[in-house]
Amino acid sequence: ARRKIGLIPADGIGKEVIPAAQQVIEAVLPSRFSFIHLDCGFEHFQKTGVALPPDTVKQLREECAGALFGSVSSPSHKVAGYSSPIVALRKQLDLYANVRPVASPIGGTGKPIDMVIVRENTECLYIKSERITDTPNGKVAFADRQISEHASRRIGRMAFSLAAQRLAHRRKTAKAGAAAAPPTAKVTIVHKSNVLSITDGLFRESVRASQQDDARFAEVEVEEQLVDSMVYRMFREPEVFDVAVAPNLYGDIISDGAAALVGSLGVVGSANVGDDFVIGEPVHGSAPDIAGRGIANPIASIRSAALLLARIGEPEAAARIDAAVDAVLAKNDLRVLTPDLGGKGTTAGVTDSIIKGL
Amino acid sequence: ARRKIGLIPADGIGKEVIPAAQQVIEAVLPSRFSFIHLDCGFEHFQKTGVALPPDTVKQLREECAGALFGSVSSPSHKVAGYSSPIVALRKQLDLYANVRPVASPIGGTGKPIDMVIVRENTECLYIKSERITDTPNGKVAFADRQISEHASRRIGRMAFSLAAQRLAHRRKTAKAGAAAAPPTAKVTIVHKSNVLSITDGLFRESVRASQQDDARFAEVEVEEQLVDSMVYRMFREPEVFDVAVAPNLYGDIISDGAAALVGSLGVVGSANVGDDFVIGEPVHGSAPDIAGRGIANPIASIRSAALLLARIGEPEAAARIDAAVDAVLAKNDLRVLTPDLGGKGTTAGVTDSIIKGL
Ligand SMILES: CC(C)[C@H](C(=O)O)[C@@H](O)C(=O)O
Ligand SMILES: CC(C)[C@H](C(=O)O)[C@@H](O)C(=O)O
Repeated sequence: ARRKIGLIPADGIGKEVIPAAQQVIEAVLPSRFSFIHLDCGFEHFQKTGVALPPDTVKQLREECAGALFGSVSSPSHKVAGYSSPIVALRKQLDLYANVRPVASPIGGTGKPIDMVIVRENTECLYIKSERITDTPNGKVAFADRQISEHASRRIGRMAFSLAAQRLAHRRKTAKAGAAAAPPTAKVTIVHKSNVLSITDGLFRESVRASQQDDARFAEVEVEEQLVDSMVYRMFREPEVFDVAVAPNLYGDIISDGAAALVGSLGVVGSANVGDDFVIGEPVHGSAPDIAGRGIANPIASIRSAALLLARIGEPEAAARIDAAVDAVLAKNDLRVLTPDLGGKGTTAGVTDSIIKGL
Repeated sequence: ARRKIGLIPADGIGKEVIPAAQQVIEAVLPSRFSFIHLDCGFEHFQKTGVALPPDTVKQLREECAGALFGSVSSPSHKVAGYSSPIVALRKQLDLYANVRPVASPIGGTGKPIDMVIVRENTECLYIKSERITDTPNGKVAFADRQISEHASRRIGRMAFSLAAQRLAHRRKTAKAGAAAAPPTAKVTIVHKSNVLSITDGLFRESVRASQQDDARFAEVEVEEQLVDSMVYRMFREPEVFDVAVAPNLYGDIISDGAAALVGSLGVVGSANVGDDFVIGEPVHGSAPDIAGRGIANPIASIRSAALLLARIGEPEAAARIDAAVDAVLAKNDLRVLTPDLGGKGTTAGVTDSIIKGL
């Protein structure tokens, strides 16, 4: 039987870009996978009162090799009973790492950017443990921010393992006999331990400790950046970063920042990775302003499909997709590219060009 | 008797840039103020075991009209008993707003940037309520994030009041009879209520409610941005922002991001503002890598001095300082400007040029 990929378009442009990614997968690996459509999202909540149907999670768990998620709309006011389904999905499937590669031959400062953000995906303020009380001086609300040794150490391992892979790849592709400096790889630990000495202190120490977990990690360099100065430096000299690892919220923020450096949120894909499941997910949101108009950039979802394929045993197909995307971006044909990149093209047009280039 | 200004250089380049700012104040308002030097910082902690001597706070409270703070070094590992003295100072003096104007005739995207970040300065994760426990699965740490109606509403008032002032100023300076659109002003509320519906929900609602607190606020426009998308948009189209108001940590992060857009952290000043005290503070850190070499950019501290003077009854002197700084920046003489701006100049040289231009 063919392996199954779950498709969870959810809201807004998710419904346009996920089918585009599906087309690309079918083009690169004809008849290799079958696809099932799964319900989820704010629109689904409005219809049924449920944002993430238990059946969606069950089908992912029991039937799928992996999945692609689109994007969810956030209600503009608090809606009773609604809570972000993507956050719930990451947690329920223990997809503990959100891996976000951000690369461009000419980044915001004119130099090549080639970084991967490894975002912890299960804790920090995302545990959603909040409460509010009335006091004589008005309402006071609290949220718990959780940082655990266990989650920090495993996200550290993910970061070092990616860095070690990158180092190996760089060594393989470095020109033999060239006078250039020998290849290196680096992990930047992002935190705010000058204020959060206990929680972010634990994060930084656990990530550092994870370097001992595998002999291949030993050659990877390590540095630390406070999150505020990380945002500053990413915009000033993004070319110096390689693999950045961060607790959940900082990871969320710096990956949107990194996306700005490569031209558009519309080109940055991600993979939500656990020990036994993976969900590809574009970094962008549901973009209600352009939803339904056929002009959403499908590249972020197509890159997410490549990340998904790479993790479910199809690394060659993934590499072919990435190369085809790179070619379309390098060509920079504004008749083809979508408006977020300054073009006049459509979702369908970009998808076709990528498929032709496979 | 002359009014007193407290000088708290603290660590690293703070010791170089605060004297520069003092020189400028003395040049613009000869003999108007006397100055006292107050101890504080990580270096002071290393010598004495105390980072913020109670006497420093007492002298500020009892003797000073306002103060200038330099920058603190963060130890690279957790040091027992040490906790950031600037965070403590903000809290003990109830300096509840950190006002950070970020402006440049040509920002990162080639368009003028003119925004003010109003950062809540007393709560959020900065209450430093953290704990750690051992579990069978390793250590687990928690931090409390506090958001109160009281603090959010008063920071909202600060944001609306600045926006209303800016609107009035724009109306006054708009060319009479010109065909241009009438001036507007806008407050952007930055939060992450799609995840933190209770705490950030309270923040956004309280800021919105504060618009009712003064009739002059009515004409100010209001919008909201999720913090991740705020960072993204700030880098893509910073020119669309006017006044941004944010809880403490988001405010910390976005103001470093904004600083990157105007060329250097070395030119962004801030004021820590309470109902009865104000401390000017450059947004940059203690820069141990360049400390002691006489090449730190004094402009952030000099701008902070202007913000201080504006709030202690010397708005004209403040305007003169800002104009002199603008002139030095506009001239862009790389023999004068410091290395962070691509120049070869020194702290003393920049300070002299500004004083000459007063
Ligand atoms: C939609 C939102 C809950 C989500 C997040 O904060 O994780 C999004 O910003 C992302 O980056 O995937
Ligand atoms: C030094 C540090 C505690 C401080 C902060 O986070 O507030 C600094 O980054 C700032 O922005 O003033």
